Amino acid sequence: MTGTLTIVGLGPGADDLITPEVQSALAEATDVVGYIPYVARVADRPGLTKHASDNRVELDRAQHALGMAADGRRVVVVSSGDPGVFAMASAVFEALEAGPAEWRGLDIRVLPGITAMLAAAARAGAPLGHDFCAINLSDNLKPWSLIEKRLKLAVEADFAMAFYNPRSKARPQGFEKTLALLQKTCADTRPVIFARAVSTRDEQVNVVALPECTAEMADMRTVVIVGSSQTRVIHRTGAPIVYTPRSAP
Amino acid sequence: MTGTLTIVGLGPGADDLITPEVQSALAEATDVVGYIPYVARVADRPGLTKHASDNRVELDRAQHALGMAADGRRVVVVSSGDPGVFAMASAVFEALEAGPAEWRGLDIRVLPGITAMLAAAARAGAPLGHDFCAINLSDNLKPWSLIEKRLKLAVEADFAMAFYNPRSKARPQGFEKTLALLQKTCADTRPVIFARAVSTRDEQVNVVALPECTAEMADMRTVVIVGSSQTRVIHRTGAPIVYTPRSAP
Repeated sequence: MTGTLTIVGLGPGADDLITPEVQSALAEATDVVGYIPYVARVADRPGLTKHASDNRVELDRAQHALGMAADGRRVVVVSSGDPGVFAMASAVFEALEAGPAEWRGLDIRVLPGITAMLAAAARAGAPLGHDFCAINLSDNLKPWSLIEKRLKLAVEADFAMAFYNPRSKARPQGFEKTLALLQKTCADTRPVIFARAVSTRDEQVNVVALPECTAEMADMRTVVIVGSSQTRVIHRTGAPIVYTPRSAP
Repeated sequence: MTGTLTIVGLGPGADDLITPEVQSALAEATDVVGYIPYVARVADRPGLTKHASDNRVELDRAQHALGMAADGRRVVVVSSGDPGVFAMASAVFEALEAGPAEWRGLDIRVLPGITAMLAAAARAGAPLGHDFCAINLSDNLKPWSLIEKRLKLAVEADFAMAFYNPRSKARPQGFEKTLALLQKTCADTRPVIFARAVSTRDEQVNVVALPECTAEMADMRTVVIVGSSQTRVIHRTGAPIVYTPRSAP
């Protein structure tokens, strides 16, 4: 079995946020597998076959990629951001664990990428400069009660928080409940960053005080970062800077 | 004032993990500022002045960088990993907030990088594939009681956890206490990843079951990742794969 499976992160959108390591893997691939808009980001070339599939078929896609690698192909699975943060790497390993024993002998690598929260944080300043957590707000694959429990404990721990998948048409309620919980339990001064499609032409970054936040400010292309109790806003001409100091009392 | 201040992340060590965006900023810099080993990673060239300083002088370094930018230089502050995660960006903004008002008019940008936990996670599989937190275990700038509180709440929230700066010669006790707390409160099956100097020639990645972990397994160049209760280990010939599934009960 000489095939390879490489699971890569394309970063948040801009080509100059893709690592050279990932570009090399793409240059050597025979097959690229992923969600339609991410596969579209990979340039066509002779010898490269693209396999684009829709959202919510992550396991099928993972099995397809593993099967092709087992057949001797050099397969690259693409995610946006980092493949290990709420993305394809876990789906591939779920499929690997449940699949034929021979798949475990495959040459599998994960290549990191710039995940959305780091790109968003950089645009706003350094809101994740101290201890923080990352929570996927989608309740497609976990009960809402677990999300709510984690939110409450994250507030108690005084983590800054990054929220992935805050809101979709199919799940309009979750982010509303999240905001209500935070507005009830956190001080009014806490800054919230809505960072949409960072580094693409659709980029929008807004800093909003917690009491002014509404659910409509986020969609599926938005990462939301909520400061800790220590997070500060530096006002100036132009966009404010949001950062969390290195020290905490 | 035409100077610029760009705060960049050099990633965990390998050159092919530095984004092209960061390479462009370095190519245009007149001055590079940072901790000695990170400044050493930037190639010398005519027109570039390097300002390397020792550890623990982050605020002095930040003020120096801001001052040079205010004088019209194109200054790049380098961190390893991502500059916004336990690195220089927060120090720069602390200095900016406390400094002369004119500094707020500077053109300041933060360019993200591959932070250590993402490089480490990629090597091991996808241990951060579900909700997780990142905690700096150094008590130089916060009380140990706060670290302990966060650890307990992170266990209760069932986050996977990434620990930065787990242990240094000056702080041999903290990581020992951390392991003792986890060994007391988490199941014995929980995998722990010790990832040292990932992507450098000194790279070492070990997966150890929680009861077998000892403090000596980590040093200042190590990132430690502790799985959640759901994290799984796939055994195979060669290194095991550690991943956290996308779903949780």
